[in-house]
Amino acid sequence: MEESNFLDIAIKAKEASKKIAVISDEIKNKALINIAENLEKYKDRIFEANKNDLEFARNLVNKGELSEAVFNRLKLDDNKMRDMIQGILDISKLENPVGKVLLKRQLDDGLILTKISCPIGVLGIIFEARPDVISQISALAIKSSNAIILKGGKEAVNTNKAIFNIINSTLENTSGFPKNVISQVFTRDDVNYMLKMDKYINLIIPRGGNNLVQFIKENTKIPVLGHADGICHIFADKTADLEKAKKIIIDAKTQYPSACNSVETLLIHRDFGYPEELLKALEQAEITLVPNPESWHREYSDKILAYKFVNSLEEAIEHINEYSSGHTDAIITEDKDSAEIFLNCVDSAGVYHNASTRFADGFRYGFGAEVGISTNKTHARGPVGLEGLTIYKYTLQGQGDIVKDYVDGKKQFKHKDL
Amino acid sequence: MEESNFLDIAIKAKEASKKIAVISDEIKNKALINIAENLEKYKDRIFEANKNDLEFARNLVNKGELSEAVFNRLKLDDNKMRDMIQGILDISKLENPVGKVLLKRQLDDGLILTKISCPIGVLGIIFEARPDVISQISALAIKSSNAIILKGGKEAVNTNKAIFNIINSTLENTSGFPKNVISQVFTRDDVNYMLKMDKYINLIIPRGGNNLVQFIKENTKIPVLGHADGICHIFADKTADLEKAKKIIIDAKTQYPSACNSVETLLIHRDFGYPEELLKALEQAEITLVPNPESWHREYSDKILAYKFVNSLEEAIEHINEYSSGHTDAIITEDKDSAEIFLNCVDSAGVYHNASTRFADGFRYGFGAEVGISTNKTHARGPVGLEGLTIYKYTLQGQGDIVKDYVDGKKQFKHKDL
Repeated sequence: MEESNFLDIAIKAKEASKKIAVISDEIKNKALINIAENLEKYKDRIFEANKNDLEFARNLVNKGELSEAVFNRLKLDDNKMRDMIQGILDISKLENPVGKVLLKRQLDDGLILTKISCPIGVLGIIFEARPDVISQISALAIKSSNAIILKGGKEAVNTNKAIFNIINSTLENTSGFPKNVISQVFTRDDVNYMLKMDKYINLIIPRGGNNLVQFIKENTKIPVLGHADGICHIFADKTADLEKAKKIIIDAKTQYPSACNSVETLLIHRDFGYPEELLKALEQAEITLVPNPESWHREYSDKILAYKFVNSLEEAIEHINEYSSGHTDAIITEDKDSAEIFLNCVDSAGVYHNASTRFADGFRYGFGAEVGISTNKTHARGPVGLEGLTIYKYTLQGQGDIVKDYVDGKKQFKHKDL
Repeated sequence: MEESNFLDIAIKAKEASKKIAVISDEIKNKALINIAENLEKYKDRIFEANKNDLEFARNLVNKGELSEAVFNRLKLDDNKMRDMIQGILDISKLENPVGKVLLKRQLDDGLILTKISCPIGVLGIIFEARPDVISQISALAIKSSNAIILKGGKEAVNTNKAIFNIINSTLENTSGFPKNVISQVFTRDDVNYMLKMDKYINLIIPRGGNNLVQFIKENTKIPVLGHADGICHIFADKTADLEKAKKIIIDAKTQYPSACNSVETLLIHRDFGYPEELLKALEQAEITLVPNPESWHREYSDKILAYKFVNSLEEAIEHINEYSSGHTDAIITEDKDSAEIFLNCVDSAGVYHNASTRFADGFRYGFGAEVGISTNKTHARGPVGLEGLTIYKYTLQGQGDIVKDYVDGKKQFKHKDL
C-alpha cells in the first residue's frame, strides 16, 4: 500500500469516528449481536482460511522459523470460536461507557457544567498471531464508539481477512451503523504510516512481544497504551507461610509461563525459615531456578525462575522498584504491616498480597473484557477495559453568561454539585 | 549544566517521588502552610529579585526584544503576591487526591481488589515569564505527592530563584518531608536533557506559547499534558438571541484577549436575523473583524476576530471540528435541539451553549487550582486540577489464592462490588 492509500484510510476512519461517537447504544449492541450471529453462521469460511494459515505456518515451524507456541496460538478450533462469539455477546451486555455523567456542577444560577464520557477517536491496533484478537478488539471499539485501524500478524492474514470480512459486511447491513468504523491493513509499511499519522490516530495499542511494543513506542508521537516487558516479582517475606508460598509461586510460574503476568524473579527474605523446602518444591514443579544478576531484567516466558536472597523488606521493595516492569508484583507474608508497606511502596500497576500475579487480567478483575494491560503512568494502568478507551468532555450550558461579571465582582460562583 | 548533572537531579527526583508518594496528607498540608507563611515573611526578598528581573526586562522592551504584555506578566505586586500565597493555602484545604479508593471489589471470598489513586511520579514543568506559576505548581505537586523539576523563563530567573529558595528551605525544615521533591533548572540545554529522560520523568507539562509547546511535543517520548493553540470558536445560530450574542462574543474576545480561551473565529448562520447589528456592536467594542480564510487556523491573541457565514449548523460543526484546536467552542442559540447536536458533535475539551468561552478555567470550574488546560485525547482533557496529576494502582489481597483453581473450574469468581 502507498502512503496516500493509508492516508485515505486514516481520513475515513477519522470521519467514521465522529459518526460512531453519536450513535445510540442500541445500534452498537445490535451490531455486536449481528456480528456474533454471522460469525457462527459463516464459521466454516473462517476455519477454511485458518487452515490455509496453519499449512503455511506448519512449513515455517518445520524450517524452524516459527515456534510451536505461536503455531498453537494461531490455531482456531471450535472451543476458541465459541469463546470468541460469546466474548462479543458479553461485550454487548456491558454498560455503555460513552455518555456517562462523571460530574454535574452548578457554577452559578442557570450555569451548569457537565463532565461527560466520550470516545477517544481513532485507535490503531497492532497485534501478532492470535486471530481471536480481531473480533475482541472490534467489539470493544464498537461498544466504546471508537473507530479502529487493525494491523494483524502476517501468519494469520487469511484468518484475519475472513473474520474482518464477516464483521464489516455485518456492519454494512446494520441499520444506522456508520461506514469505515473498522479498517484493516496488512504490511510493515502500513505500521510505519500508522505511527506517523498523529493528526488522525489518537491512540496506538500494540498487543504482542517486547520487540514489537518497544519498536512502536520508539517510533511514534501518538500515545501508546500497553506494556513491553512483563517482569513480575514475588517476595517471600520473613513470615511467609510456606504452603502459600509454594502454591502461589508454582501457579505464578507454571500455570501459563509465557503470559506477561507470570513471575520472573523470586526474592526471599534471609530470615525466612524454609528456604530449602521452598526451592525444592519449585524444582519438583519443574521450575529451573537461576541465581544470577543478569536475570534481574530478563523475561524468560518459560519455566525458569530467577531468585535472590534479600536482607529486608526495604531491600525487596528497592529491588522491585528498580527491576520490575511495573506490571504486577506480589508479597507473601503473614505480617499485615509488611504487607501494607509493600502495597504502598511498590510502584506497579498491580501490587498483591498472598495472591498469584496471574490474577492481573481484565476478565479476572471483572471488567468483562480487556484491550490489554498497561504499564503506563498516565491515562490507564493495569488491565484496561472499556473505560480506558474513553476520555471526557466538559459541556457548559448557560443563559448568556460572561466571565467579566465574575472578574468585576458583580457575580460570585456557587460551585454546587448536583 | 552538563547532562550528567541533570541526570543526577532526575535520579534524585525519582527517589524523592517514591518518598513523597507515601507521606501523610497532614505533612503535605503543613508544608504548604509553612511555605505560605515564609513567602509572606520573606516577600521583600522576592520583590527585590523581581526588581532586578524587571530592570533587565525593561531594557529588552526598550530594544523591542520583549513585549509589554510579557513585561506585565513578569511584574509581581502586592496583589499578585497575596493571590499567590492565598492560592497555596487554598490547595492545602483541598481533599487529598492520593489514596482515594476508586473501586473495591470482592473477586471471591477473601480475595479483594482495590483500585486506589496514587501520584504519577516525576513531573517536568516548563513555563515562561509568569513567576507566580512556580509557587502554584509546587503547591499542586506537593498536594498530589509528585516530585517536580521546574524550568522557568529566563526573564524571571531572579524572581524564580528567590521563590524557589524560600520554598525549598521551608520544605527542608518541615519535619517528615522528603528531600529533593522540587528541583529547579535554568537553561535551554536543561530542557533538552529533560525531554530525553523518559526513564526518570513521567509527564511533561509545558505552560507557555504555541512555539514552546509545539517544540516540546515534537522532541520527547514522555507524555505531554497541555495545549499548543487556543483556537476557540463561537457559532451564532439561526435562532441566536442578539443581546446574548453581543454580550458573549465581546466577553470572549475582549475580557482578556491573549488568554487561550479567548474566541478567535465567529461563525454566523446565514439565516441569523441581525448580522449587521451584531458585527457593528463588535466593532464598537474595538474588535477588528477579518473575513479571510487564512485566519481559520490563526490564534490572534488580540482584539482581532475572524468571521464567516455558514449555511447550516452542520457546516458550523464541520468547520469547528476541522479548525478548532479542541480547546473550547460555543454555540449561541435559542433552539434546544441545535444546542444538543452541537454539544454532542463538537469534539473539543469544552463545548458550551450560551456562555462565554472564557469560562474554560480550573478555578471557574471549581477545581480549586489548575496545572493547565489540556487538549489531549488521553489521560486528562480540559482544565486539569489535582486529579490529572494522579493515576491509580490495583492492590489485590488474598489468602494464598491461585489462578489454576479458576482455570480448572474448582472455583468461580464472584465479582461483587463492596
